[in-house]
Amino acid sequence: MVISKEDAPVKVLAHKAKAAAAAMASTPDNMRISALANIACQIRKNKQEILQANQKDVAAAKDLVKNGAISQSMADRLHMDEFKLEAVCTGIEQIAALGDPVGKVDLARELDHDLQLFRITCPIGVVGVIFEARPDALPQIAALCLRSANAVILKGGAEAENSNRALFACIKKAATESGLPGDALVLLSSRSEVAELLQAHQYVDLIIPRGSSALVKHIQENTDIPVLGHAEGICHIYVDEAADLDKANRIICDAKAQYPAACNSVETVLVHKNVAAAFLPILAGSLSKLHVKIRCDSKTAKHLNPNFTFELMSPEQWSTEYGDLVLAIKTVDDLDEAIAHINEHGSNHTEAMITENLPSFDKFFAQVNSAGIFLNASTRFADGFRYGFGAEVGISTGKMHPRGPVGIEGLVTYKYKLVGKGQIVADYVGKDAKAFLHKNI
Amino acid sequence: MVISKEDAPVKVLAHKAKAAAAAMASTPDNMRISALANIACQIRKNKQEILQANQKDVAAAKDLVKNGAISQSMADRLHMDEFKLEAVCTGIEQIAALGDPVGKVDLARELDHDLQLFRITCPIGVVGVIFEARPDALPQIAALCLRSANAVILKGGAEAENSNRALFACIKKAATESGLPGDALVLLSSRSEVAELLQAHQYVDLIIPRGSSALVKHIQENTDIPVLGHAEGICHIYVDEAADLDKANRIICDAKAQYPAACNSVETVLVHKNVAAAFLPILAGSLSKLHVKIRCDSKTAKHLNPNFTFELMSPEQWSTEYGDLVLAIKTVDDLDEAIAHINEHGSNHTEAMITENLPSFDKFFAQVNSAGIFLNASTRFADGFRYGFGAEVGISTGKMHPRGPVGIEGLVTYKYKLVGKGQIVADYVGKDAKAFLHKNI
Repeated sequence: MVISKEDAPVKVLAHKAKAAAAAMASTPDNMRISALANIACQIRKNKQEILQANQKDVAAAKDLVKNGAISQSMADRLHMDEFKLEAVCTGIEQIAALGDPVGKVDLARELDHDLQLFRITCPIGVVGVIFEARPDALPQIAALCLRSANAVILKGGAEAENSNRALFACIKKAATESGLPGDALVLLSSRSEVAELLQAHQYVDLIIPRGSSALVKHIQENTDIPVLGHAEGICHIYVDEAADLDKANRIICDAKAQYPAACNSVETVLVHKNVAAAFLPILAGSLSKLHVKIRCDSKTAKHLNPNFTFELMSPEQWSTEYGDLVLAIKTVDDLDEAIAHINEHGSNHTEAMITENLPSFDKFFAQVNSAGIFLNASTRFADGFRYGFGAEVGISTGKMHPRGPVGIEGLVTYKYKLVGKGQIVADYVGKDAKAFLHKNI
Repeated sequence: MVISKEDAPVKVLAHKAKAAAAAMASTPDNMRISALANIACQIRKNKQEILQANQKDVAAAKDLVKNGAISQSMADRLHMDEFKLEAVCTGIEQIAALGDPVGKVDLARELDHDLQLFRITCPIGVVGVIFEARPDALPQIAALCLRSANAVILKGGAEAENSNRALFACIKKAATESGLPGDALVLLSSRSEVAELLQAHQYVDLIIPRGSSALVKHIQENTDIPVLGHAEGICHIYVDEAADLDKANRIICDAKAQYPAACNSVETVLVHKNVAAAFLPILAGSLSKLHVKIRCDSKTAKHLNPNFTFELMSPEQWSTEYGDLVLAIKTVDDLDEAIAHINEHGSNHTEAMITENLPSFDKFFAQVNSAGIFLNASTRFADGFRYGFGAEVGISTGKMHPRGPVGIEGLVTYKYKLVGKGQIVADYVGKDAKAFLHKNI
């Protein structure tokens, strides 16, 4: 297996990727399905080379940990083995099995006799994805982009460079052998190339950063290209006065402690004052067992056993993402205060309400404008795999489409197709104007 | 009728609008329908005051034209009369009659027993619209935003200030009397307020500029808020070798001359070399009668009668929007060259292909990534009213949703609703993990 270096300037590669994106947009569904199947085959066939490349990265990472350049947990996430690689292949096969997101008609309307309008899904074009560390992200992202008929420019973390090159070589070989245009897959390797990519707005349609809040903010501030993703995940759980407190306790513990570094873990719990006395001591006890530190307002503090250690919050601290075993708790007067608090301090990611009162939840659902609004379930369910999207390229906290976990359906946009027989607008304006039918078909 | 001045700082108004947007998101469909009906009533009732206010603007505009501060055509567009006002009211009633775009479910999936995921449309939140001159734009935009349950901050052209204030007063009175939150409707009047609005990213979810290319570019460069619209409309018509040349001629004349200042008028015609000799002289004759000036490449020039005046194009001129009776013409070797030319020089607005060969059009449709791709119809059909959207807030040339003419369906986004009974993620990971059902319901 030859691992080729792509060393043309980024703008040249991006320009070629744009041309390839047009060809990708015409590829039939079965070509993209078989390309993904072949990618999984190729990765399995080159298992040894990939794992050897990964061992180089893992060995180099050990030195980086010693120097303090990267954390032990980052080094741990680099590691691949036969089982992880097989999971990657299964994941690609699952993405292949998803229905074609391209070519779906969601509007069909007769504007007049022999003048038909259709709105039809199509690929976005060229998608640039910048991700950190984990090498298994690369095949997953590439598979999602190819399944949705997009060209993709990938830049992985420097720590995983050998693993990424080995995986990318398999993907590109299998994709081109299946008939996909080779220029539709580009791997970048240096930071300076990322800077060039961010300037290539005439060729690149969407940038997806996956990584730290600092990475995402840096990218948002340094490009005119639309950016999909999130810098922060400040998720809330509101425990209503009509909550089942046992559900509330279990859900909060899961949402905080099951994987605290995830963007969909909870950062702030809001508790209705009428259940504060009954619920807060129970919750504090559960959290204490999980080594979760509590920060709270003075109303909440009154209900906590003075034996627990907790810190009082100042009002400006409510917009903090801890990503750690720390939880902010506030006692609120009512549902309106909970809604206002979340809309003021949240990051539009995912919020849950614990209640048995459905009309109250309906109000919460309507008035909180986040991508995910959950009833009696953990915020940790906000995830492309759990939603049944196969996987995700990222989670968007923007208000515009696509929103929330973004799978292949989020990687397409649409075009309007108008099919006429020579119609001109002059016939439909002014005196004696023809009327439009506007009849859905 | 008292015309109130809103003189609080823009950030305060925007913050209140955000709170009002949450309330708007809960308003029932019938409340929004009756609000729009009442707005039409209120405008009819206050016809005289509105027309008097408009006469002030028209009178002031006469002086501005004399000074050369504005053009005569801009002054003409300011003018309102009883008939235009009645058309505005009918337009509002048509928007009221459109189906509710909020609350539509486009995904319903059982993740597991008693754990259901829904994707449901919801308003975007606070929409800021900055538009120039024509006062009838204001009620149309306000009606689209309120119908889709958004809060709206409006800034019209300074020349139409009296008309805008009079119309806005009617709209706000009728909307609040119908139960909509008053803070959901804001009118700004000065340029400095626009600058403040563009900085209010914590409160404003979307900015829609409607006006000159310079206005749109200025706004895109001066805000972090997502901007919907277009700076340029460089539309193409490709005359294929299998074109019906009579259709081609009629369509090009309509697309160029019926209203050349429109963004959906054609700027460049691409002609297949095999029909160049037969078609170009006919086209040049028709265009000459319409006083359209021709700019072309040397291959095209060979087929033009030397009696016609035309200019030769330099290669870098193909990305020009004339917005005037000027047309660029290029002779191309084949469909691939036409597609490549459009993807290189176009603005992703609207392109038409004239052909009787449907497989060729299918390729054109797949590979040209513009918001509108038309077969045998004028590009001038790219318009919210003609598409049957009732009206439009603008036309988006971005690749992401919403694309093309944006009516009420483009003014909503979606949320994911997850309805559980206490489920936690810990049960679905690791050894003995529960499996997801992922069954569409």
